[in-house]
Amino acid sequence: RNFATVERNCLPSEKYLEAKKKLDAIISSSDSSSVTTETKARSLCEIYSNLELEEKALFLNTLSTEYGLNQDQVIHAAQAVLALREKGSGTLLRAEEKLRLTLQPRYQHIFAVVGRLEKGVKFLVDIRADLMDLIQARSASSTDSEDQTHLRVMSNNIRELLSLWFSVGFLDLERITWQSPCDMLQKISEYEAVHPIRNWTDLKRRVGNYRRCFVFTHASMPREPVVVLHTALTSEISSSIQSIVQRNARLSGEPEPVELSENTHSISTAIFYSITSTQKGLQGVELGNYLIKKVVRELQAEFPNMKNFSSLSPIPGFRDWLLSEIDSFSKTKQKPVLLKREENKLSSLDSKTEPIVTLKHSILQMSDSATWFQNSPNVDVISGILMRLCARYLYIEKRRGLALNPVGQ
Amino acid sequence: RNFATVERNCLPSEKYLEAKKKLDAIISSSDSSSVTTETKARSLCEIYSNLELEEKALFLNTLSTEYGLNQDQVIHAAQAVLALREKGSGTLLRAEEKLRLTLQPRYQHIFAVVGRLEKGVKFLVDIRADLMDLIQARSASSTDSEDQTHLRVMSNNIRELLSLWFSVGFLDLERITWQSPCDMLQKISEYEAVHPIRNWTDLKRRVGNYRRCFVFTHASMPREPVVVLHTALTSEISSSIQSIVQRNARLSGEPEPVELSENTHSISTAIFYSITSTQKGLQGVELGNYLIKKVVRELQAEFPNMKNFSSLSPIPGFRDWLLSEIDSFSKTKQKPVLLKREENKLSSLDSKTEPIVTLKHSILQMSDSATWFQNSPNVDVISGILMRLCARYLYIEKRRGLALNPVGQ
Amino acid sequence: RNFATVERNCLPSEKYLEAKKKLDAIISSSDSSSVTTETKARSLCEIYSNLELEEKALFLNTLSTEYGLNQDQVIHAAQAVLALREKGSGTLLRAEEKLRLTLQPRYQHIFAVVGRLEKGVKFLVDIRADLMDLIQARSASSTDSEDQTHLRVMSNNIRELLSLWFSVGFLDLERITWQSPCDMLQKISEYEAVHPIRNWTDLKRRVGNYRRCFVFTHASMPREPVVVLHTALTSEISSSIQSIVQRNARLSGEPEPVELSENTHSISTAIFYSITSTQKGLQGVELGNYLIKKVVRELQAEFPNMKNFSSLSPIPGFRDWLLSEIDSFSKTKQKPVLLKREENKLSSLDSKTEPIVTLKHSILQMSDSATWFQNSPNVDVISGILMRLCARYLYIEKRRGLALNPVGQ
Amino acid sequence: RNFATVERNCLPSEKYLEAKKKLDAIISSSDSSSVTTETKARSLCEIYSNLELEEKALFLNTLSTEYGLNQDQVIHAAQAVLALREKGSGTLLRAEEKLRLTLQPRYQHIFAVVGRLEKGVKFLVDIRADLMDLIQARSASSTDSEDQTHLRVMSNNIRELLSLWFSVGFLDLERITWQSPCDMLQKISEYEAVHPIRNWTDLKRRVGNYRRCFVFTHASMPREPVVVLHTALTSEISSSIQSIVQRNARLSGEPEPVELSENTHSISTAIFYSITSTQKGLQGVELGNYLIKKVVRELQAEFPNMKNFSSLSPIPGFRDWLLSEIDSFSKTKQKPVLLKREENKLSSLDSKTEPIVTLKHSILQMSDSATWFQNSPNVDVISGILMRLCARYLYIEKRRGLALNPVGQ
Repeated sequence: RNFATVERNCLPSEKYLEAKKKLDAIISSSDSSSVTTETKARSLCEIYSNLELEEKALFLNTLSTEYGLNQDQVIHAAQAVLALREKGSGTLLRAEEKLRLTLQPRYQHIFAVVGRLEKGVKFLVDIRADLMDLIQARSASSTDSEDQTHLRVMSNNIRELLSLWFSVGFLDLERITWQSPCDMLQKISEYEAVHPIRNWTDLKRRVGNYRRCFVFTHASMPREPVVVLHTALTSEISSSIQSIVQRNARLSGEPEPVELSENTHSISTAIFYSITSTQKGLQGVELGNYLIKKVVRELQAEFPNMKNFSSLSPIPGFRDWLLSEIDSFSKTKQKPVLLKREENKLSSLDSKTEPIVTLKHSILQMSDSATWFQNSPNVDVISGILMRLCARYLYIEKRRGLALNPVGQ
Repeated sequence: RNFATVERNCLPSEKYLEAKKKLDAIISSSDSSSVTTETKARSLCEIYSNLELEEKALFLNTLSTEYGLNQDQVIHAAQAVLALREKGSGTLLRAEEKLRLTLQPRYQHIFAVVGRLEKGVKFLVDIRADLMDLIQARSASSTDSEDQTHLRVMSNNIRELLSLWFSVGFLDLERITWQSPCDMLQKISEYEAVHPIRNWTDLKRRVGNYRRCFVFTHASMPREPVVVLHTALTSEISSSIQSIVQRNARLSGEPEPVELSENTHSISTAIFYSITSTQKGLQGVELGNYLIKKVVRELQAEFPNMKNFSSLSPIPGFRDWLLSEIDSFSKTKQKPVLLKREENKLSSLDSKTEPIVTLKHSILQMSDSATWFQNSPNVDVISGILMRLCARYLYIEKRRGLALNPVGQ
Repeated sequence: RNFATVERNCLPSEKYLEAKKKLDAIISSSDSSSVTTETKARSLCEIYSNLELEEKALFLNTLSTEYGLNQDQVIHAAQAVLALREKGSGTLLRAEEKLRLTLQPRYQHIFAVVGRLEKGVKFLVDIRADLMDLIQARSASSTDSEDQTHLRVMSNNIRELLSLWFSVGFLDLERITWQSPCDMLQKISEYEAVHPIRNWTDLKRRVGNYRRCFVFTHASMPREPVVVLHTALTSEISSSIQSIVQRNARLSGEPEPVELSENTHSISTAIFYSITSTQKGLQGVELGNYLIKKVVRELQAEFPNMKNFSSLSPIPGFRDWLLSEIDSFSKTKQKPVLLKREENKLSSLDSKTEPIVTLKHSILQMSDSATWFQNSPNVDVISGILMRLCARYLYIEKRRGLALNPVGQ
Repeated sequence: RNFATVERNCLPSEKYLEAKKKLDAIISSSDSSSVTTETKARSLCEIYSNLELEEKALFLNTLSTEYGLNQDQVIHAAQAVLALREKGSGTLLRAEEKLRLTLQPRYQHIFAVVGRLEKGVKFLVDIRADLMDLIQARSASSTDSEDQTHLRVMSNNIRELLSLWFSVGFLDLERITWQSPCDMLQKISEYEAVHPIRNWTDLKRRVGNYRRCFVFTHASMPREPVVVLHTALTSEISSSIQSIVQRNARLSGEPEPVELSENTHSISTAIFYSITSTQKGLQGVELGNYLIKKVVRELQAEFPNMKNFSSLSPIPGFRDWLLSEIDSFSKTKQKPVLLKREENKLSSLDSKTEPIVTLKHSILQMSDSATWFQNSPNVDVISGILMRLCARYLYIEKRRGLALNPVGQ
């Protein structure tokens, strides 16, 4: 059961009405830090969590449309700004501050109150995941377009809040080993989608010697890895991820991985062979990139001879998928592959070629075993773009079941 | 030396120009998460910290005026919203989103980048403290009014960011004892302004038996107490703080406080005799209230017989100051004592009396030894208001040297 | 391969001779705390660990016979004591001190030096395990009796040292949960012999709700559980361990145990259903009893309604084994079941009956579901004895494969 | 008040008789691990701690004389050994084991039971300190000689137990900084006798940059430094400790030491300028030496250029004291300065010279700024001896007030 299949016009249950009542009470409360407001917010969260799927959909719809902007106030404030534009800039500034405030949807106030609760941030992450599911479930139907816009605006609103709360300074880097708590290891095993973990022996190997498993955790979600990065350490770049996977396969009959001690000086290459963002509700909040940057610094500190950081080629299916996306865009000019800022960067590398073409050439030039994340400026630009696209491939496309190469699933 | 005395029209030094160059680079960078942008932001922070006071003033002025809103874009977007107001709400919503974005000053982008750096949040706290000093230093001169507005808007902008980052979920409650790290205890000793700590023996007593010292710390400022709350535990409400202070005085000749073990069952009263917010840059970010709420819960869990939580009366000078503020406002209607929402609450208690009069009556009814923070609804409203005003008294007025009663300093 | 099958008269290898050389050097060194002595001791440990089994046997034999007492010195000192017995007690005392020192075998000095090394205590635990294996392997052959005596004396000597080092104050009680480090959980799974753990789901259940798993760890063996105690918490005494085991069996098909939250107030009974001492070399060092005592105190503190602590009956096969041992002793007067001090205690309960008969009656009176560890004085005596015998059953008899009831294995 | 001045023949109080009753109960108890025995031992400790000084003396006397060896058993067992000496060595061995057991005084059993209690090891350390005080107080009077022998034997007996419990593996090395718990820093301040700490600013400096303060702690005495070692880090060997002390003096007016960051590469020398053993009851248990060895290893790991470890000369008064001790012994042959094993070592360096003369020459050759703890074999021997003597100077002689140089006090 998911949002795509639920009844649209359900009759609101008592629980639903209760939730709405809490909503109104919080909105109208003048003191958002009072004990009573907090208590209401806490029970709102609990009620929502226990709603049936159709009522969750109804609730999110209502929240995004009826608790958004006060249009009259916005119009009013916008007119005031226009009227004052010739006045001194101090007066104008104050009018603009007012306008800015009217443009904050009322549900933002709810989210701020919820975010202050214990486990409130996690609740917002989860409600955003629901929102995204709902938006996706309805994206086919064109009749919903206005509702969809409201939902999207609300989803963006939560994302902006979460971006501030999941700022790098609030994320803790943690290395996971066989000495780490069992519940963390179990979660890491379950979240691993790219190269599924078969059993505990396999898991022990992935956090053992010649491997590094790093996670970001966040104060608002104790004992929960937010992003997981698996890394293999070798003396050379593997020609493909298959060799790493197969090595595991070969060993998997053995009761226990051999505890080879690492030869620090022979290690020159780190292969990021799997990255997983575990919270759907944090999509659009840049985390994976930051984790990779931090891990690169950790590994450089640990291994004096570390020279190569490789990620691209081992991800099965990514290269093919990307080339097909590029071709499709080149033909139809639909579904742009590159962001505006990425186009600008590519143009700055080669102003005479179309950005998308520059990208394609770069990919074709890279052999399968090529490394990225090296120091030439071009590589920097290209690898940044490829990493974003790769993340997109892993996070989004694969969920849709569009991944071309079945090995990668 | 402070902002009140610095030269206004200094010639920008090379360092200053360097800072401005970094500013431009960060603003124009398309990728705020790139390593280069971060490096620039880091050196901007370092340069600013080393600027002379007059250049800091100049820099803050420039930042608030030249890196704020793009007025043309605002006007444009406001016009678009007005033009679309009859169209479908989806279209209008998108125009409003655009308008909202144009109303985000460009320096907000800088702050977001800085906030992601290690120690970046602390930098923002410190820059806001500078801003507040600057605003205060210039508040006398009427010619500055437009600059002041820009500075104030920027100060609010930072405050809003900090409010999100210093949300309760990100603050760690810590009890400080004689077993706590020495550097924490030293800081607590230095920050204590209400009842200054004389020596280490005195300090040992304040964290010893029949006392509780709690702090909030924050991930962005390790080893730094953000708010400090000193509490005395007794079997009855002290008639005044003087008895607590004098008891210390009497003992202060002794080499070591006697280690009385606490009689848990006789403890019924907690007196919050000193609360200190250590970061000027966090003024306006509600923290003290949350700390008290958390401590109340801690103490209730620890002491089954805890019934009274007292704070108001022991703060010397507060009652007199507040009554004089009320009278002054009643006469002049200048410098309002109450917030709008507080007036509303007081009206709801007694709709026939002016709110300020209701407040005054309540104060006069309370004997010196009265407790607040009990459960009747009136007390809840009144004590909330008194706590905010008391915080104001301790934080602001006393810094201006306006505290009437010299004992309190 | 074990000590029972190795060649007796092997030609000493170079490694063996090297080990003996270190031995002589340490014995003759005057300063046992010098860096050089420590270095020699460290390499002695390493060499021993790498010896073949026959050479280990040879080494232990040599150590116990050639590095024991200096018989001449002993005789001399004993004569001196006898000669002085009429002299003042001060003189006699000094002679006795001297005699006492001559009665310390020289290998004791080696063990003291080794014990000070990092991991030295663990080495002594392991060498004692070897000793016990060797003694057992040769116990059949009567020709070895003199060698056996030397080995036994040396084994006792190490046990006395270990008893001091594994004193309760040096053992840390740790509760193991699913949040504990994975390597600890893996070891607990592997050590569990009484009711083997099938898989990680099963393991998760045994450290989950309505269960408690406690271990003793020791500073000398980090990350190593020395004794493990599994406890089930119920509202009544299970009629047998089978129901606990079967409950697991029934659930074991499910992917994940249901996370029932514990109803603290309904819990009145703790069933110690499995206790494992993981270090053979610590046999004879009382640990299990202390662990149970500590756990009893922990559980009483956690559960206000805890009334029964049950252990005996659920251990399959124990009752039958014990009754057969008693009968066999009653007939043959060989292989005494009770220690002298236990006989005394039983006599003090009932002076007219033979101690062994008192014990038998007590056992027969206890129904299968009886609890022990309650407060009547008789129960205290009986349960103490039964616990020792039960430990003996679990530790020793089962290793010999003598356990009667196959369920228990 | 101390043992030297107390009444000898006090009438035993009820408390005293109670203590003796517990003693008898523990001795006669057959099961030393039972709950009742433990309870008795716990109350024995408590009663002893509350005895008056004269009764403590009486108690220790009684314990050492009446709870020591059973002379009849000893004589018997010694005769048995002599009778069996021609029999096979197995039989003899068993007789010797028996003899060894009879030579264990009965109070050893008490100490073993106490050592297992929580805080029991600390109690034994304290009771030994009492013993040493008592022995010293009575050392003048010749009439006590027999009692003294009993007390000395008991003191040695406890020392042997403590030596095993304070083995290096059970001691935790901890670096103390300004971030360490305040109670630890306070204790370190109070224990510092060689160069007393004036105030908290002074203390902050001694744990700050260019200094290292290390302690050993022990599981049996949480939050208690057992040995403290203060080290100064410099680029050359200070000509004297005075310069270090004076530097402090000069700065002590300042409110806060300047936080110089350390220049790791310029540091080549560590000067151990003060070592303190805080527990009198651990005298004779080698700890200081082990601490220095561990710290040397720590510093070598931290500072790649560390070459010199200096300690001797800076200890004021030591050189003069030692030379005078040597001369006194050379003349009178009383109060030997060197242990037998030290004499042997010195003879092995230079067999033709008397050991004490070799030592004297070495001292005279060392200039005041000489370093020791370097790698030539001679230096190793000499420095070992000097360290032991230096410890003796600091621990013992100074307590007697014999230190010649008043600066050192």
